[in-house]
Amino acid sequence: MSMDITFLGTGSAYPSPTRGASALVLRREGECWLFDCGEGTQTQLMRSHLRAGRITKIFITHLHGDHFFGLPGLLCTLSLQSSPDPHKAPVDIYGPLGLHSFVRRSLELSHQCPAEEFKDFSSLDRDEVSPQGPPGRRIHLDPVEDCYSLVEEEQLVVKAFRLFHRVPSFGFVVEEKPRPGKLNVQKLKDLGVQPGPLYGKLTNGTAVVLESGVTISPSDVVEDPIPGRKICILGDCSGVVGDAAAKLCRQADVLIHEATLDDSQEEKAREHGHSTPKMASALAKQCRAQQLVLTHFSQRYKPAAQRGEGDTDVTELKRQAEAGLGGQEVTLAEDFLTIEIPMKK
Amino acid sequence: MSMDITFLGTGSAYPSPTRGASALVLRREGECWLFDCGEGTQTQLMRSHLRAGRITKIFITHLHGDHFFGLPGLLCTLSLQSSPDPHKAPVDIYGPLGLHSFVRRSLELSHQCPAEEFKDFSSLDRDEVSPQGPPGRRIHLDPVEDCYSLVEEEQLVVKAFRLFHRVPSFGFVVEEKPRPGKLNVQKLKDLGVQPGPLYGKLTNGTAVVLESGVTISPSDVVEDPIPGRKICILGDCSGVVGDAAAKLCRQADVLIHEATLDDSQEEKAREHGHSTPKMASALAKQCRAQQLVLTHFSQRYKPAAQRGEGDTDVTELKRQAEAGLGGQEVTLAEDFLTIEIPMKK
Repeated sequence: MSMDITFLGTGSAYPSPTRGASALVLRREGECWLFDCGEGTQTQLMRSHLRAGRITKIFITHLHGDHFFGLPGLLCTLSLQSSPDPHKAPVDIYGPLGLHSFVRRSLELSHQCPAEEFKDFSSLDRDEVSPQGPPGRRIHLDPVEDCYSLVEEEQLVVKAFRLFHRVPSFGFVVEEKPRPGKLNVQKLKDLGVQPGPLYGKLTNGTAVVLESGVTISPSDVVEDPIPGRKICILGDCSGVVGDAAAKLCRQADVLIHEATLDDSQEEKAREHGHSTPKMASALAKQCRAQQLVLTHFSQRYKPAAQRGEGDTDVTELKRQAEAGLGGQEVTLAEDFLTIEIPMKK
Repeated sequence: MSMDITFLGTGSAYPSPTRGASALVLRREGECWLFDCGEGTQTQLMRSHLRAGRITKIFITHLHGDHFFGLPGLLCTLSLQSSPDPHKAPVDIYGPLGLHSFVRRSLELSHQCPAEEFKDFSSLDRDEVSPQGPPGRRIHLDPVEDCYSLVEEEQLVVKAFRLFHRVPSFGFVVEEKPRPGKLNVQKLKDLGVQPGPLYGKLTNGTAVVLESGVTISPSDVVEDPIPGRKICILGDCSGVVGDAAAKLCRQADVLIHEATLDDSQEEKAREHGHSTPKMASALAKQCRAQQLVLTHFSQRYKPAAQRGEGDTDVTELKRQAEAGLGGQEVTLAEDFLTIEIPMKK
């Protein structure tokens, strides 16, 4: 079950030729989930190895233009592309309150209105006038877990938690459910159980009774469940709200965190609701994340390969984050960088 | 007085890496006017030699996403860039009814609302709920001229006329007012008038009386006024509504016309409210345009330099239009192509 993340835009504030506006794709076994959709995301998708038509879900972290102004255009193009196939499944969209209305109105105005299904969630406790079209589903904060349950599928769950920013902003945790542990084949052989249907029953948690009358329970011969992968993708923030984030992100395989400015500008970063590498690494350390990836860089930090004379060195941000993690390696996102996340064994 | 046109996006339907979504800049003595603003226009501006901060007016031909989804992002970026300078003049925006509301709501949602002044015009005779913020100015059709008067400046006028399309779509005529004719210096000398203030009076249309008692009227010594330049920029269309367009575009220096599909697909083009080279050249011929420029090509027509094996040859569209104009050369727009329009002498 392959899983990878591809960054389509890693710049803050606006898209530029060296860093697109915020967008990344989490791909699992060919199915693509898009996180944020800044202006130009559909063109970045065309430049990448990904196929826009494989997008089944879109998640928007917050309603600043550089994170969602590409959504109407992408939806129009998806609608054009899938028009010969009216049976194509709708794209589910999850985002803060207000997004539903924006997307619906944009598509209505542009006379191109596909049948996307909308899902709003937000800490804002106000109603808004619903535009025409199928209503969205309002997702409320779970007061116990202090988070929003967005998706629950057979193999996966997605939850959202709250961040500190100038406007409501969210982080997402995508977590695979644990897989059943492996059968201890040697032990089974010793017990006289031959390969066959009984193996399947035991793997699925059912006890079996042998012809000899001996009962074997799964816990005797099945190893511990294998944890799934956990990917955490945070929107713009200068910190997290409450304890939910640290709990949800614990031991994340990949924690994707913004680092708009370098550590020397922490005051300015906080003033604008943003983070520095030190701030990002503090959360990564608290969560014991396996891999911290920094993104959403101020456009002044050109990618290393495109850096001209006088341009600020983005690798300084990597060094600052690594210092905060006692030397643990930190990844700097660049447009079109792909990170593979192997299954646990 | 320099004047040029730079194409920022020449593709139809959606932006692609080889052709951006519709946008072009008419630049006159450094001041930039943007016509259409498809998604990605701000990035195309950064890639070009133009400066977004020099944009003072924006005109939108019609409300299909590939012509205006880049507007909220561009306005946010302009607002960010000009934030140290609160005295920067507002950007005037002209577009069909509904655009005002879209832009205002997008910027409100994104919590970034600059003080642009909006001007709506449309053949649609319906009211719409006005969003918060300064109201736009509604421009009505002049029933005599069958057009909309959008701008009247000291040296320039801009008018809009109606096109046939699936939604209300408009063409724009930007026309310089005539400059005063040259003084016939030899004739003045023969009449005994020496260079000095009298020359200025005559140029400005005032008769002068010499010491000899002889009256010289401007028509005696001033040549005919020198016509200004005329640029016509049409939105998506399968033709023009009424006689206004042909009159307004007569002897245009440059006529910019869409050619979404080639002549072999005229039926399909018309069905979708679009044109072929033959249709574009028919209007150019009727108007006696000096130069016809084709743009808004289906993304299947890759620019000549980026054409791969199996890609459709865009130069076929040039040949078709030239055939319709009896061999007169026709220009194919490409992203970042700049056309200079010299002053008349």
